Amino acid sequence: MVQVYRADEGGLPSADRGLAYGDGLFETIRAEGAHAPLLSGHLDRLTKDARRLGIPASRGELEKIAIGALGEFSGHYSQHDCEAPWVLKLTLTRGAGGRGYQPAPGMQPNLLVAHSPAPPAPDPRGVCVEFSPVPLTVNPLLCGIKSLNRLEQVMAARALQGPVFEVLMSNSEGHVVEGTRTNIFVLTDAGWLTPPGAALAVSGVMRSHVLSCLYASGEPVHEAPITLEWLMSDRCRGLYLTNSVLGIVPVRNLADQDLPVDNRLATICGSPTKMDKS
Amino acid sequence: MVQVYRADEGGLPSADRGLAYGDGLFETIRAEGAHAPLLSGHLDRLTKDARRLGIPASRGELEKIAIGALGEFSGHYSQHDCEAPWVLKLTLTRGAGGRGYQPAPGMQPNLLVAHSPAPPAPDPRGVCVEFSPVPLTVNPLLCGIKSLNRLEQVMAARALQGPVFEVLMSNSEGHVVEGTRTNIFVLTDAGWLTPPGAALAVSGVMRSHVLSCLYASGEPVHEAPITLEWLMSDRCRGLYLTNSVLGIVPVRNLADQDLPVDNRLATICGSPTKMDKS
Repeated sequence: MVQVYRADEGGLPSADRGLAYGDGLFETIRAEGAHAPLLSGHLDRLTKDARRLGIPASRGELEKIAIGALGEFSGHYSQHDCEAPWVLKLTLTRGAGGRGYQPAPGMQPNLLVAHSPAPPAPDPRGVCVEFSPVPLTVNPLLCGIKSLNRLEQVMAARALQGPVFEVLMSNSEGHVVEGTRTNIFVLTDAGWLTPPGAALAVSGVMRSHVLSCLYASGEPVHEAPITLEWLMSDRCRGLYLTNSVLGIVPVRNLADQDLPVDNRLATICGSPTKMDKS
Repeated sequence: MVQVYRADEGGLPSADRGLAYGDGLFETIRAEGAHAPLLSGHLDRLTKDARRLGIPASRGELEKIAIGALGEFSGHYSQHDCEAPWVLKLTLTRGAGGRGYQPAPGMQPNLLVAHSPAPPAPDPRGVCVEFSPVPLTVNPLLCGIKSLNRLEQVMAARALQGPVFEVLMSNSEGHVVEGTRTNIFVLTDAGWLTPPGAALAVSGVMRSHVLSCLYASGEPVHEAPITLEWLMSDRCRGLYLTNSVLGIVPVRNLADQDLPVDNRLATICGSPTKMDKS
């Protein structure tokens, strides 16, 4: 059984391994009122990643906690029949204890529940993106896991100033993998292209949603490595960032090079809200 | 100015970036009474690593906090004129705030102060060590930094069961780099060998101390990559683990192969306590 803590009541115990070693996971879940369009995807990922780390937490109990929190906190973001989008954050850690890095047997996981207003919506006309000089390293054992080990993303995100909405990070093989907080989809003459799952530091819930929509629409999709040179060539017909809180964000300028912007990917995928409600 | 929090008074604020992203550093400092033999090395590393991460903390203020804590907590570990060794843990984070991964300008760092009894001393006759299947990934920008991103070490440390005192982790180039909580020194016919600083996930304070002692004694020292095959060959005349809390730990058995054990390295380096006090 997961032990639940609330951020507004003091947070996790000081000896929690989430702070000590980043020994845990988190999900930031977009909500509209008490409804979270991609909740199911977040719970799937959290449960799967917890299993990969050996943190015992069942989807059922996580779902119950999330739905309770969605109901409880939604009132903070509703005024005059107007619902402002907000974010439910779940931080699941292995708990407190163990001997140094070594976890103790039978540890009880801790779950921190927090909420905040949604960030401002990105410019619908597209955003500006640069390449990050911070290398992205992905441990094959931990690929795709949204763990609390995010120092590389923090270091890269320090470049998000002025018009720079996102920076893209590359691995040691010279492949552009993802943004600090976004996955990427590229439009090509041969269909859609996105880096393969095994290369990802974080495998986004919105990425999975977009992939599902593309497959369901019969769109050709390739998961393959992308080099910086390729991305800057005219074979790239459009670049899209995906993030479960921000949605699908078209890129209008990549490293000072203009890119065509359209709403094709957003149209294919629809609004996750509508899709989930329908 | 760093904001100080105590673990026994509730710990860091729930929105601290140390928990959220592992956006911080830590030091575990061995103390005997109010004296910490390697304190200077710990403060040097903490200050240098904070600068690398862009966390504003001066050596002077960190030293003042550490010395205050050593004096205050030492009483917990003294009984009947007998001083039990203990560990002072300092966790320095970028603080609370920012926008997602992106830190806010002018953030105030947080420092969590905690203490605990020292772990049991390793068997002086030597310990048993295995190779870890968990790959070690080191971001060149973050090499050597004792950050709060330690999930790889946690995953590897799950194998520390029964007689296995430590596991050695290798990088993607097939080089054995370090243990989960130790650096390594190898005795060869041509002198001492240790993996190069740029390859390390954590550059240990005890490693630096040992290197200084070896250089001061005129011992030949090489910093070069070490393969698993090399380490298992008869060119390896002895293997030593270093850790600032545990000291210099000889390995008597590596992956079921016996190794000669002597106290040569400990003799060269002396006890850090005595060295520092002298």
